[in-house]
Amino acid sequence: MSFDYRQRHSAELDAAKSVEAAVGVDEHRIVAIDLSQFGGSALTDEAIDVPEANASEEAISITHVPARNTVFLSLAMAWSEVLGACDIFLGVNAVDYSGYPDCRPAFIDAYEHVANLATRAGVEESRLTMRAPLIELTKAEIIRQGTALGVDYSLTVSCYQADDTRAACTLCESCFLRREGFVNAGIPDPTRYA
Amino acid sequence: MSFDYRQRHSAELDAAKSVEAAVGVDEHRIVAIDLSQFGGSALTDEAIDVPEANASEEAISITHVPARNTVFLSLAMAWSEVLGACDIFLGVNAVDYSGYPDCRPAFIDAYEHVANLATRAGVEESRLTMRAPLIELTKAEIIRQGTALGVDYSLTVSCYQADDTRAACTLCESCFLRREGFVNAGIPDPTRYA
Repeated sequence: MSFDYRQRHSAELDAAKSVEAAVGVDEHRIVAIDLSQFGGSALTDEAIDVPEANASEEAISITHVPARNTVFLSLAMAWSEVLGACDIFLGVNAVDYSGYPDCRPAFIDAYEHVANLATRAGVEESRLTMRAPLIELTKAEIIRQGTALGVDYSLTVSCYQADDTRAACTLCESCFLRREGFVNAGIPDPTRYA
Repeated sequence: MSFDYRQRHSAELDAAKSVEAAVGVDEHRIVAIDLSQFGGSALTDEAIDVPEANASEEAISITHVPARNTVFLSLAMAWSEVLGACDIFLGVNAVDYSGYPDCRPAFIDAYEHVANLATRAGVEESRLTMRAPLIELTKAEIIRQGTALGVDYSLTVSCYQADDTRAACTLCESCFLRREGFVNAGIPDPTRYA
């Protein structure tokens, strides 16, 4: 499940389609929800520049999108309730960067509690589990584990302002952390940089 | 804040606009999120009939829309985080009908906990509070209190399948509970029925 939330670029949705084609999935849904109507983030408001890595001392990054992960999980919960699915996986990561309150383990745990009160699962004594397998890993550990599992990282993108060819900017926090992750993992970085 | 979630009819959005005009609000946003893409409810899937009142013994009503209130609260949370608002009000009601797990007080409490972990509020030691003033009231109490406060109930609609003229069906659970509420409150029912 991917989200077209009027983010700054479409490179991550293009990448999601490439990953879908590469690994084979039963169904990949791209769900539209316009979070740019609320603004408040460099990722949804073109008038706010994406800062360079380490440029800010703010507790909450300007690249934090208000309520994004809660909105995503809620829509995933809607689909899983209809499917009768019992697990939702999401790729949030809390270790390297703390500027995103909705990437914390405490948030995921609290959301799981909500999910089991809000849905059929909570009434029918089945259970909906939130799985965030990357949440406590360093970026280097993620890259090592993904590489061991056969992930083709050249298909993926992390940059906050990747261009239409999916080339990464090299300058933003997300590029910085991804590059550092490959260096620390001792694995060649296949990311295409602008 | 109202939601165009591809519900069966547009009468409640029309009613929301009438209420907005009648009471005067700083800003009324109608947010689009297509919940019909997941289906699983008589309110979003035209192929599923709205049942008549008391027709079903199911623990969860077929008119329950999967994850609806969680999605609505998440989008309200997005806006409130940008506004710096500290209260979100919602009109859920738990007493008369128990077929909606996301109308329970336990759900609202759990969601408030999520909201204060997911957002700026949780980090900056402000606080986001979920207010559901109708949650424990009977329909008769709601009608009595609303009438005392000057609510014009002729502007509002509760029917699951109201028509384009905002006329209610009289047959569905929601019509049944609303009518019974006016009767029990001893207040004339201004609702327009088909």
